[in-house]
Amino acid sequence: MLEQVDLKKKLGKQEYKKQFPELQRKLQSLQQEMWDAKVPLIVVFEGWDAAGKGSAIERIVERLDPRGFKVHRIKAPIEEEKFRPFLWRFWTKTPPKGRTAIYHRSWYRRVLEERVEKHVSKKQWQQAYEEIRNFERQLADDGAVIVKFFMHISKKEQKKRFSKLVADKYMAWRIDKHDWEQHKEYEKYFKVTEEMLEKTSTHYAPWTVVEATDDRWAYVKILNTIVESGLQGLDRKRRHEAALKVKPTAGAKDLTRHIHPTILDKVDLTLKLDDKAYEKELSKYQAKLRMLEFEIYKVRIPVVIVYEGWDAGGKGGNIKRMTAYLDPRSYEVVPIAAPSQEEKAHHHLWRFWNQIPKAGHFSIYDRSWYGRLLVERVEGFCTEEEWRRAFQEINEYEENLHNYGTVICKFWMHLSKKEQMRRFKERQTIDYKRYKITEEDWRNREKWDQYEEAVLDMLERTSTTYAPWTIVEGEDKNWARVRTLKTVCDAIERRLKKS
Amino acid sequence: MLEQVDLKKKLGKQEYKKQFPELQRKLQSLQQEMWDAKVPLIVVFEGWDAAGKGSAIERIVERLDPRGFKVHRIKAPIEEEKFRPFLWRFWTKTPPKGRTAIYHRSWYRRVLEERVEKHVSKKQWQQAYEEIRNFERQLADDGAVIVKFFMHISKKEQKKRFSKLVADKYMAWRIDKHDWEQHKEYEKYFKVTEEMLEKTSTHYAPWTVVEATDDRWAYVKILNTIVESGLQGLDRKRRHEAALKVKPTAGAKDLTRHIHPTILDKVDLTLKLDDKAYEKELSKYQAKLRMLEFEIYKVRIPVVIVYEGWDAGGKGGNIKRMTAYLDPRSYEVVPIAAPSQEEKAHHHLWRFWNQIPKAGHFSIYDRSWYGRLLVERVEGFCTEEEWRRAFQEINEYEENLHNYGTVICKFWMHLSKKEQMRRFKERQTIDYKRYKITEEDWRNREKWDQYEEAVLDMLERTSTTYAPWTIVEGEDKNWARVRTLKTVCDAIERRLKKS
Repeated sequence: MLEQVDLKKKLGKQEYKKQFPELQRKLQSLQQEMWDAKVPLIVVFEGWDAAGKGSAIERIVERLDPRGFKVHRIKAPIEEEKFRPFLWRFWTKTPPKGRTAIYHRSWYRRVLEERVEKHVSKKQWQQAYEEIRNFERQLADDGAVIVKFFMHISKKEQKKRFSKLVADKYMAWRIDKHDWEQHKEYEKYFKVTEEMLEKTSTHYAPWTVVEATDDRWAYVKILNTIVESGLQGLDRKRRHEAALKVKPTAGAKDLTRHIHPTILDKVDLTLKLDDKAYEKELSKYQAKLRMLEFEIYKVRIPVVIVYEGWDAGGKGGNIKRMTAYLDPRSYEVVPIAAPSQEEKAHHHLWRFWNQIPKAGHFSIYDRSWYGRLLVERVEGFCTEEEWRRAFQEINEYEENLHNYGTVICKFWMHLSKKEQMRRFKERQTIDYKRYKITEEDWRNREKWDQYEEAVLDMLERTSTTYAPWTIVEGEDKNWARVRTLKTVCDAIERRLKKS
Repeated sequence: MLEQVDLKKKLGKQEYKKQFPELQRKLQSLQQEMWDAKVPLIVVFEGWDAAGKGSAIERIVERLDPRGFKVHRIKAPIEEEKFRPFLWRFWTKTPPKGRTAIYHRSWYRRVLEERVEKHVSKKQWQQAYEEIRNFERQLADDGAVIVKFFMHISKKEQKKRFSKLVADKYMAWRIDKHDWEQHKEYEKYFKVTEEMLEKTSTHYAPWTVVEATDDRWAYVKILNTIVESGLQGLDRKRRHEAALKVKPTAGAKDLTRHIHPTILDKVDLTLKLDDKAYEKELSKYQAKLRMLEFEIYKVRIPVVIVYEGWDAGGKGGNIKRMTAYLDPRSYEVVPIAAPSQEEKAHHHLWRFWNQIPKAGHFSIYDRSWYGRLLVERVEGFCTEEEWRRAFQEINEYEENLHNYGTVICKFWMHLSKKEQMRRFKERQTIDYKRYKITEEDWRNREKWDQYEEAVLDMLERTSTTYAPWTIVEGEDKNWARVRTLKTVCDAIERRLKKS
């Protein structure tokens, strides 16, 4: 895509004065419209050093409402960032709906200098292409408009600009040894950039190569492209809303996807441990986990433990036993409730990207990103299209964690409907347990069958080799507690053997 | 995804008799509805040998209208198929809109036995994952419903079934040495299958693992899934139609994406060759191409040459010179006109998959798959959504060709508007040229500016390292003819050096 580019392109001053202010006005009203329509805008700037990324961004934001945009300058990752999957720092910086995020350099660093300078392995930057495509697809599916610019100048032009900066006593600091080294590697970067453009140009997030020799030309092209893409995004949103108004035919709903006996019907709920065996096993695995905690810290492996299950399935007590022997600095328990206003303004996985454990630490989720496939699906808090898409989104999310080296254990805390009733009643009678039972629990219980369908779909379609589900026989709490502890210990041990 | 599967699942006879005929009736009316709504259905069967793929297919089609479906039994590729990109034989077998195609084994052979038995290189089967995902995404974007079944039985069950078949004198032929060898490799295939399921489960084409120990269970689950997916596909179609009714806002249309002078304005149309130099150069490169023709035949490299350009841009005469010295058995000139009824009933790239040259041969396209980005876009023969998607689809198509080793040259035959007028007039006056000029050419000429926008987008977004565009300075026919010949020779020589 770079070969065809005519770097001699320029725009006369008169023409620029005619076009540019008009484009800025259009951009201004676009910002307002996108805000109202809750369509987020993502603008990425990559390109040669001194190609004018910074000044282009200045031109874009010049007349925009500062409450509506945020500029992110992306440098080499700091330690906090290195200790998490590479997209972590970008997911957390995605804009809320209706707002604009502009990236001065971006996630593409991974396939440009991090690749060329060998900061990452070949496997890592190769994987990054797919991770990036999935990242951008997920955001676009959620309605985001993504515009990506590569600011292109020739090697000769770059040298000219560098020399000019160096000669200026106020600007000389901007060009250091590293910049000159990259300049010398221009041809290498050229090839790598070509590959990047080809592998990540998609219909939902296409690249625009900007001939940046002439500033005026570049600014007009950039604003033009943003305005055009924004207007298209608004149209897409309107079309999407029209589509949502079409009610599904009844036919599909009548079908039961899962025929009894299901995998859940067959869970052996008679499994139990008497108190003596329980005490023994429990401390054995708790001690073991404590020991493993040090091991994973040393080699910087993160551990993700997900608890999902029926109400009163024993998640809370189970988590207590899981963490009992652990150093509180090494783990975090993350309770997941309904999303906040801020969280709702982002992609549904955004809040979970924010909660990824640092390498060497545990994150234990009391409910999780599976909300979309369970409560949000059953209660209609998201559209059918959204939850259907979520199977793949969630698998991709967990694959990101896995690619980074994370151990992932997911527990479905299972119990019989009868035992749930017994526990509900117990909660109502015992004073210090009463807070645990709410009207909602009773309502959920009435929808047991619908939830069961959702759970079965979830187990079937999100159990992967890298993030398998364990269905925990939860009728007996003793049994369940030892079962989860042992599963986590085993998973960590398997992972340690590989590293 | 295989781990969670409960292979003990079964369905009682009574239950089956209650459910199955009802499902068959539903499938029958689904077939009719999908036919009417022009939604194609693709059903893929993979799974262990003797897991019951064949009988499941029999059950599906039992009550269907035979005009509406076709069953494809996919075996190891024959020579014709090996001489083309691996998806060729599957693209050509995609169903027309409203019809059903059922595949007994499929494109997944590539990542199963062709991988395990090392018929293809690691690079090839790894690439295949992405090629397959793109293939299925393109079909789904075009409205197809894709249902994929993996028929799962245990190693023990497989052995039992093999032995039973062997003991039956009428059936024994079905199990040969190769089947037993695969049986012994069960664990290896299990792992490879897991990977396949994970890498190719998408929201547009999810896998369904069928517990196939019990036939009744399997049949009910399969029909259930097809009916459910079909109904969803019908809903999707209705939503899509509602979305199409939303008219785009005028805003985006007002913008000129390409600012003059464009890459086309700057083409040096003064370039020419006098007749003497032309004759010399022409025969030099024609002779060279003849020589290269033998070379590529020997090493089985296919060559694709695409001609696009303004009306009267000189495509016809240029092609004549390209092929003048070639052995007619080695090339095919493919003129592309408006799609036929049959072609319209398929994905827009279907007819081009049908026209892929055999390894070692040339295919020369007089107009091509770029119709979607040119005439179909400008004349409104496809929706905006469709042509916007086509940039990526076409790049993916060409990447498939490239991955297979194809040399791809694409020519945009350029000339000035003035020269076009001269040629139009000449055509009107000279008797034997008169057939070349039609009303349509004049109409197209009036839309020059719109076409120019489309051409610029096309050049910008579909010029890749593996399939670059060459803008041919076509004002002088002599020059243009030597230019294209030389470009093809150079590209072939570069490719030969690499192999």
